[in-house]
This record gives sequence, structure tokens and C-alpha cells, in this order.
Amino acid sequence: MPPAPAVPRYAYLGPEGTFAEQALRQATAGGDTAALVPMASVDAALEAVRSGDVDAAMVPIENSVEGGVSATLGALAQGEPLLVVGEQVVPVTFDFVVRPGLSREDVVRIASHPHGLAQCRVWLHREFPKATLVPALSTAGAAEALLDPATPWDAALCAPIAARRFGLAPMLTDVGDNPAAVTRFVLVSRPGPLPAPTGADKTTLAAYLGPDDHPGQLLELLEQFAVRGVNLSRLESRPTGEGMGRYYMSIDAEGHVAEARVAEALKGLHRVCPKVIFLGSYPRAGGDSAPVRAETSDAAFAEADTWLRAIRNPITPPTSP
Amino acid sequence: MPPAPAVPRYAYLGPEGTFAEQALRQATAGGDTAALVPMASVDAALEAVRSGDVDAAMVPIENSVEGGVSATLGALAQGEPLLVVGEQVVPVTFDFVVRPGLSREDVVRIASHPHGLAQCRVWLHREFPKATLVPALSTAGAAEALLDPATPWDAALCAPIAARRFGLAPMLTDVGDNPAAVTRFVLVSRPGPLPAPTGADKTTLAAYLGPDDHPGQLLELLEQFAVRGVNLSRLESRPTGEGMGRYYMSIDAEGHVAEARVAEALKGLHRVCPKVIFLGSYPRAGGDSAPVRAETSDAAFAEADTWLRAIRNPITPPTSP
Amino acid sequence: MPPAPAVPRYAYLGPEGTFAEQALRQATAGGDTAALVPMASVDAALEAVRSGDVDAAMVPIENSVEGGVSATLGALAQGEPLLVVGEQVVPVTFDFVVRPGLSREDVVRIASHPHGLAQCRVWLHREFPKATLVPALSTAGAAEALLDPATPWDAALCAPIAARRFGLAPMLTDVGDNPAAVTRFVLVSRPGPLPAPTGADKTTLAAYLGPDDHPGQLLELLEQFAVRGVNLSRLESRPTGEGMGRYYMSIDAEGHVAEARVAEALKGLHRVCPKVIFLGSYPRAGGDSAPVRAETSDAAFAEADTWLRAIRNPITPPTSP
Amino acid sequence: MPPAPAVPRYAYLGPEGTFAEQALRQATAGGDTAALVPMASVDAALEAVRSGDVDAAMVPIENSVEGGVSATLGALAQGEPLLVVGEQVVPVTFDFVVRPGLSREDVVRIASHPHGLAQCRVWLHREFPKATLVPALSTAGAAEALLDPATPWDAALCAPIAARRFGLAPMLTDVGDNPAAVTRFVLVSRPGPLPAPTGADKTTLAAYLGPDDHPGQLLELLEQFAVRGVNLSRLESRPTGEGMGRYYMSIDAEGHVAEARVAEALKGLHRVCPKVIFLGSYPRAGGDSAPVRAETSDAAFAEADTWLRAIRNPITPPTSP
Repeated sequence: MPPAPAVPRYAYLGPEGTFAEQALRQATAGGDTAALVPMASVDAALEAVRSGDVDAAMVPIENSVEGGVSATLGALAQGEPLLVVGEQVVPVTFDFVVRPGLSREDVVRIASHPHGLAQCRVWLHREFPKATLVPALSTAGAAEALLDPATPWDAALCAPIAARRFGLAPMLTDVGDNPAAVTRFVLVSRPGPLPAPTGADKTTLAAYLGPDDHPGQLLELLEQFAVRGVNLSRLESRPTGEGMGRYYMSIDAEGHVAEARVAEALKGLHRVCPKVIFLGSYPRAGGDSAPVRAETSDAAFAEADTWLRAIRNPITPPTSP
Repeated sequence: MPPAPAVPRYAYLGPEGTFAEQALRQATAGGDTAALVPMASVDAALEAVRSGDVDAAMVPIENSVEGGVSATLGALAQGEPLLVVGEQVVPVTFDFVVRPGLSREDVVRIASHPHGLAQCRVWLHREFPKATLVPALSTAGAAEALLDPATPWDAALCAPIAARRFGLAPMLTDVGDNPAAVTRFVLVSRPGPLPAPTGADKTTLAAYLGPDDHPGQLLELLEQFAVRGVNLSRLESRPTGEGMGRYYMSIDAEGHVAEARVAEALKGLHRVCPKVIFLGSYPRAGGDSAPVRAETSDAAFAEADTWLRAIRNPITPPTSP
Repeated sequence: MPPAPAVPRYAYLGPEGTFAEQALRQATAGGDTAALVPMASVDAALEAVRSGDVDAAMVPIENSVEGGVSATLGALAQGEPLLVVGEQVVPVTFDFVVRPGLSREDVVRIASHPHGLAQCRVWLHREFPKATLVPALSTAGAAEALLDPATPWDAALCAPIAARRFGLAPMLTDVGDNPAAVTRFVLVSRPGPLPAPTGADKTTLAAYLGPDDHPGQLLELLEQFAVRGVNLSRLESRPTGEGMGRYYMSIDAEGHVAEARVAEALKGLHRVCPKVIFLGSYPRAGGDSAPVRAETSDAAFAEADTWLRAIRNPITPPTSP
Repeated sequence: MPPAPAVPRYAYLGPEGTFAEQALRQATAGGDTAALVPMASVDAALEAVRSGDVDAAMVPIENSVEGGVSATLGALAQGEPLLVVGEQVVPVTFDFVVRPGLSREDVVRIASHPHGLAQCRVWLHREFPKATLVPALSTAGAAEALLDPATPWDAALCAPIAARRFGLAPMLTDVGDNPAAVTRFVLVSRPGPLPAPTGADKTTLAAYLGPDDHPGQLLELLEQFAVRGVNLSRLESRPTGEGMGRYYMSIDAEGHVAEARVAEALKGLHRVCPKVIFLGSYPRAGGDSAPVRAETSDAAFAEADTWLRAIRNPITPPTSP
């Protein structure tokens, strides 16, 4: 590592020109003063964080159409601990770029990442019913390759940032079957101080259920949140990889672990689950703060604490002389 | 009050010779070194505690046939705070005593406290179908009066201790319709240090529900216990006296407030209920300790605390030079 | 029984002149066309119903100051089945009557049922601090006895109806420590057709818990109601009489068993409890109907039924020829 | 459609030689008497069912490593109703096939479906650290293409059935990072009669939560199952596609809708959720029947029904003449 500069280094799911790069630039206000390092896979990006090679990595965690991103959820829940310190929501609409010099009628083969092709399936069928679809390893790679005369495809669906990066004037923009489609990315670092609470935060967890999935075990888990008034914004059963039917729960809870209701819910979880992995408390993208009910506010917890302390350690009234 | 002796003074629901006196002697191992003061009512006994006139009072709280004792439950839940520091369970079977000199055939009128008459109703009907039943202000009073020739009854049903006290040889003992009948008495003192936990304790509470008894409010209250694995050994809705349909919950929970699961449940109750009155943590009569599930033990709570503290205040690994 | 008249016969907790008679006259609009039969005890009144000697009986079930009436709750939960077919709420304020000819200063001994004395305790202490209190078997009996010169007391606290009945001009009316005090009475008959639902009904039950009161068993019982949106207006643990710590739950639920949500909750209870006793569905006194949430209305249940039937018995679309 | 034969036609996620074909042959005991029709996508396969072009389709629904298959879960939850009538669990280990004539040292480029590459990532890195990985549209297509001299890759990872089909002798078998990896496939037909209950069944649902995801709404959903003792073997929040944070719950419950406890739970769900889609009750792969608790058996439900009917329609004892 260079001794002098202390320029922060951020990895992202590459190559250059992906939606992940777009998310990272969004998070770093352009990223001009940071080194942005594209990585070949989510695993590689997170491994670079763990090894200290980069300070943090931006990886996709959830897509509004496809759901949770297995590679990221899996990598966070296994291996050396990591910490989510922020999130970015990026609209997922594509630029349609073609090999320079070609016109629309020339397009016979269209490439993109399989997920990109899937999200434009209806559009492709309508606009290019006869085109052959070619899976590529990334949306950006599919675009960049158009600059190489040997590439066996004529057009690509890619992130707007890729079109700009590779100097490809998009023939069409805002392409996609679902105009509301977004992907949520998380910025992941090594364990360290948590982002300060903002009043509109999110806490991410992985909670394992015991081997004996008796009726009500999941209910018991959820009650740990409900009884402290903690809302869940995401709850997914994810395979542990140990075989069909073995799951852990991937959870986003509203609030910050610095808040009493979240802290007590987590402690409850820790008691009833064989394993709980804390993955971070960080500001919610969007930043709208949900109202907290009076009886689950920090003030209510503090008051209950004071009350209980007085019960446990009563001050005996002095006897009259 | 006498300046010197410091002999403890205990009130009880009198007059002399009641089951309450029996409970108090049971608790004080005979009570020889204490001053036992009979009081005319539960209210008077508890008032004597509040005023400092006595150190504690023994009053009935629950009968295995009749249920909760309104006077005691009501007096504990209102007025200056009091603390239950112990309990005694006393078998409720009666001695049948007659005026000295009379034989069984002479018995025409039989007196006792109305509860005493109620608990011997079947027996009375079988053994003395023609007798007139006379309500008295106490079982002991009914017995003692037999020594007064002017008393208009011939026999009484009273506690064994009363028969002995007044020198009345019981004509019959172990009288009562339900041989398993017992009354639970509590020893009540002013607020002060709690009895130390023994592993087989009980915590008594009064918890008020809000004015709006929406479906599930009681459920919410119970979940505060359930989610921390705290069992309830008694749960009664009691009128608040503010009108039909307005209740508070009178609760006996297993465990001591010095235990983490009980403490957290109480704090939860304090947050969700408009008012919670802590009435004491004290050794259970019988003293059988119920097993505590591993995930709700003090050790589990302590470990969860440690885990959460580490999450909130992570130790940043030192950066390599 | 007389062959001809068919005048309905109603028993009540006597003697003549009690609050129970007042409740019965309230229920029968004066009761002029019915035979009203005073009985010596709740047990006797209910026994007369069981034996067919009367058509129904009016007995107290709950007092807004003292709570549930053990004798009634106990008698309903045991023995031959009975059915509550109506309820009446009666204000419990007393007339203070004195022996004809006496003035206030002459009053030395005051009689009433012990519960009457208890409910006027503060008033008695303030107005007659030196009077001797005499327990009587009923408030009405205490009043009527004033007409007998041999009666050893000078005044009585009784129901207004008793003062009128015995021609005793009350010296004071509306006496009582709690002006809001009321007693709820129930009209009990033999099993038969249920009163039709009115939209403002109540269902009364006795539900037994199993011998193994594990944490959560009571919760499980309550969830049977909560999950169907059935509110409880009363919930009391009552002793089964089999020993300290053995309870059944005495329950008033809002709604009528003819309504789907109540019916399903009762069936759930029947499955999870060793024993459930149905004691009646009848119009609520007061008659205010609580709003039923859309998802727990009879319409919602009926629609769910239709939906499920279609799932179980799908109509196979005819195959094209 | 041909008028005569009535040979059943089954679609599957093609092309020929996929794990889906393997699942279908497993289900049809070889499939010799049926027409098996490969389709280009899950959507196309299910569309063929809806249109009546085929009788049923075999599509992947869940992978023990990656989790739920978005394309299938999404297609089932939208559009014309479909019915799952069976499931098959297929081990996901790969054959490693090379272009005929090449030896291991000749392998420079390796192709497979991206999921196939992901599931062999560790193995590929260890065995062929220098190879270029090429994404293909299917594992089978990657293999078949090896027969074409123009194909720009040398080896493929494919299902055993593909190697056999295309006459490619596998260089290595049982390849994969996770030897326990399996994929669960479902056989989907148009709505029609349900498979008969076997005692070891599964019911699949999609349940939508309301727009207002208040704390406890998910809990309410789960309680509908818990209170009837119905265990869940899978619970996933899936995006509705309407934007980040909008989910429906994809659920596998243990039991058959012909069973009372499952039926009542579904009806409860129908009442509290804005939308519930029933996707089928069918025999569980593996076929181990989980024990049903006595209080949630069909017998217990039937008995409760009988009890309630008697309550609602009591037989009035005949009056004496």
C-alpha cells in the first residue's frame, strides 16, 4: 500500500461502467478524491475489504424485481465479519448502445448480463423480435466489447454510466420492462465504529434458526421485534447451503442498534437463536424517519430502567428519631 | 412506641385465634419473641404498617376455594406503597366447638364468619340439617363468644388455634367441605430492601390497562412475560372501582426481580401499561424451584449484554504501520 | 307444577327486598305477571332452575368494587349445565333505615350484609364513628328485622326496594363509599335456545387450563380470541377448588356465538383446552355495540369460506373438443 | 392438437439435457409414454401450460444454495392461475465434458450457465485457475455446442443427462463446490382437482401484505398458521415489482388444504391479507410425514365443530306434560 496519500480506496462489482460504479459515485459525490477499484465478483470485492486491500466495497444486495442478491447475502453471512455502513438505491434502466456505425436495422445479436436481458425481456421481444440474445458476464462488458471489431454481437443493454465511459452514444435510453425497477447497493467495510444514528436508520442481521424448526420458532424470532415495537422492512429466508429446507433469516429492521428498542430486540434474538450476525446500523436511503411509538422510545426505555433500578435498590425511608 | 426493646411488632387480621394468626406464628416460628397485634380488618392491619405502628402485617390474599381476597388485593394496589416480603399457605379446616356443657343434640344455632359457613355448607347440611346458621364478624369471635352465657348461639366453626386459645375442646376437627382448601397469606411491610433471591421466588404486581381496552391489549401485556420466558402463577382481573368493566390485572410471576428475565419483563410492562405497581419479590411457599430455560437464564441475558456492548462499541483493529 | 296458568316463575337471591329482586324487576319490567321466588342462596336459586322448579334465576355475578361473585361463578362452572340468557346492571347505593320512632342520635348498632358494611365502611366511620356494626345474612333481612322489637340493632343499610317493601322511610338515601358502584346480575335458565344476536352481545365461558401450566398456555388461550379479533370484556382466573394454584379462566367475550368469529374462537378453545363450558350468549346490558373490524365480520368469514370451498373443489374448465 | 393419442405433454425448462428434464423424467418414471417439450424459459413453459399447449410443466422453484428462483416464483404469483401438483428434488452436481478429442491440458475456455459457473467457482479456481469462463444460456446448451467445431469454448459443466444425451463422455463427474446442493422443481398444471392428501403434503401460497406494513402485520400473518398448529417449511419475502420495499410472502406450509387446520389457516389469511394466491397442495418430496399435534388433527376440528353445533342448536329438553 502506498505510504503517503491516504486516498480512500473503494472496490465495486465491476467492470468499469456497472450500476455498482454508479452507486459508488452516488455515495462518494463523484468519487474524485477516492480510488475506485472494479472487482470481478461480489466475493472478490468483499475479499478485498477483508484483506485490507480496500477500505470498503459497494455491492448489490437487493433488486426490486428479482429480490435479494444471493452472492452478497451469502458472502456477508459467512467468513470474516463485515459491516454495512451505508446504502444507495439506483434506478435500473438501461441504455441501448450499438456498435459505432450501425443503424437499428443492422442489429442482429444483442448482449447483456442475463439479469439485464431478463429485465428487458418484454421490450426486446417487442422491439427486436428476431434478435439473438447473447449472455455476457456483465452489462458493462457487453457494451465495451462493441468497440472491438471481433465481438460477435451488435448491440448491448448497459448502465448509463457505461455508455458515457466508453463513448457509446445510446441509441435509446430508459429501456426496461419495469420503469420503477431499482437496485439497492450496500457499502461494506471492515468492523469498526458504527455510523452515528440519524433517526432514519436501518439495521441488517442474519439470524439462524435451530435445527429443529418446530412450529412457532420463526414466530418466536419475530416476537422479539414485535414486543419492542421494532418494524422489519425486509425478511427473507435464505438457504444456509447445508441442504434443502435449512434456512437463516436475512433481516432489515428499522432503527439503529444505538436505540434501546433495537438493542433489546437484538439481545432477545441472541438469546433465542443459535447464531445471530450483526451486519450494521446505517442511514436509510431515502432518509424518511418512521415515527416511533411513545412506549418504545429511548425515553420510555430510560424511564423504565430508572423505575426498575429504584425497585431493586429501594431507599429505605429514614426512621424517625 | 417503647424506646428500648426493638421487639418486632406484627399485625394480623384478628381477632386472636384466626387463621391469620396461625399463618403469622407459622412464619415467625411461634412468634414468641415478637409482639403479635390483632387488627379488626385488613385495611386496619395494612394502615398500621403504613403508619409505622407495626413492622409488618399478615393478611390473607387468596383462598383456594373462593379466589383472591378483595380487601387485601385492593388495599395493596392503592394508597401508600407496601411490599410483600413473604407468604404462608395455611390449610383451612375447621374445629367444631360447642358451648361447654352442651352435647351434640343440644346444638340449635351455629355461628361462624360467612366464609366459614360457606366452606362447611355441605357438612352443615348433612350433620345439622335443622340448625340455624348465624353470621359472625370472625371465626375466632364466634368461638370466643361461646364462653359468654348471653351469646345466642351454641356452637361455632373456627381455626384450630382459636379452640386452643379459648380453651374450647373441639367436638370435631378437620371439618370442611373441601379437605384440600388452603388460604395463602402474605407478610406485608413498608418499602425497603427486598428479600434475597432464593431460586424459588415469586413477584407480585398490579398492572393497569389503558382506558381503551382494544383487543390485544391484555395479550400485549402477557407477551411481555412470554417473550422473556416468565411464567405466571396467578392472573386475575380486578375491578379498579371506577365502574363496571374497568380492571387492573393482579399478577403473580415466577421469579425474582433481581433476575434479568423478570426485570426486563417488568420494564416492558412499565412501558406499555399506564401504571404498574411492584408489590414485592419473595420466596415462594413450598419453595420448589421451577427450571429456567437456558435462553432466559441470567447467564444468557449477561452474554447477550456483552455481545451487544461489543457491537455498539467495536474495537477497531489497529491498522498496520 | 300447576297445570293451568303458565305464569313464568323466577327465583332470585333473597330474601325479598334485595338488589337481586331489584335486578329481576328491572328485567321483567316490574314482574307483575311473573312469580318471583326469593331463595336463601345463589346455590339454592340455581338448584331451583336445574330442578325445573323455576324457569330462571337472577343472581349476582360481578361487583364493580369487589369483583367476581365466587358463589355464582363457581355454581355456573360446576354441576348440571346452565345458560345465562340476560344480564342486568344495578347501581349499588343504600338506603339507611332506622327502627320506626328512633332518631339519628339513638342509633347505636347498625346491621347489614358484610358486603354492604364493607361498601359503606368510610361513610359509617365518618357518620357513626361509635356505632357497633352487626353482620346480617342479607341487607334485606337486616332491614326487615327492624320491625321486630326483639331485634338487637337500631338501623340497617339496605337496597331501596327493601325500604319500600317493608314500609321503612329511609333516613338517608344514596349511601355508599363509591357512588359509581354497581353489581351485575345474570338471568340463568336451563339449556335451551339462545337469545337471538342483537349486535351488542356477550358470551360467557369457563375455560380450564391443563394440569401443566407451562409458560404460554394462557397466552395460547388468549390467542384463540385475538387471532379472530374477539375482544374480552372480563378475564378472571378462578380457583378450581382442587388446590392452590389450580385455576380455570372465567371469560366474558364480546359477541354472540352465532357470529363466525366467536364461533371459531370457541372451537379453537375447545381444541386447546382440556375443558370449556359454554355459559351463554346474550344481549349486553347498556347495549352499545362495539365496532367489528372488517376482516373479522361474518361477511369476511363467509367470503373466506366460499373462497376455500372453491379451492378444495375446483371446477375443471371443460377441455376444448 | 392431435385428435387421437392423448399422450400427456409436459413442458420443461430446456433445452434438452437440463436438470429440469432430469426432474421431469424422475417424475414420470422415464417419461417414455409422454411427450416432453423443452422451452426456452420458465415463462414460456408456464405460458404453454396456461394456453393448454401442454398438460403441465416442470420448472425450478428453489435451489439449496441460491434460494428461491425468481422467474418461477414471480410467474406463479402473477397472471392466470396455475396449480402446483408435485415436486421433485434433484441433486445438482455437474459432469465436466470436453470437446471430443481434447485432453485436460487443452482446456482454455469453459462454458456453463452463470449459475453453473457460480456453483463450481471454487472447483474451477482450483482445477483450472487459468481458464476463461464463458456464460451460456443453459448448461445443456454449453455442452451441446461442444459438438460444433465453431464453438469458441473447449469444455462445459452440465447435468449428467446432457452428457448422455449428446454422447459426451464426461471427463469428470460429481463436480460442484457443495456436494449437498439440490434444486427443487415443481410440476405445474392448470387449475383442476387437487392431488389427494397423503399425510405428507405441502401447500404453497403467495400472500400479500397491505400497503401499510405496520409492525406486526407479518406477525399477524404468521399467527394465522401458528394458532392452528401449521408449520411453515419456507417463508420468503419476494418483491412485488412495484418498487423497493413492497413485498409479498411466498410460503410453503406443511399439510394439505383438505386438512382442517390448513383450511382454517388459509381462511384466516384470506381475511387479513389483501390478496392470497393458492398455488397447490401436493405430496412432499421425501414423503416423511411430520406428526400432527392432537389438538390440531382433523378429529379435533371435527369434534369442536360438533360441540359448537350443539351449542348453537341446543336440543330443548321436552317439557313435562
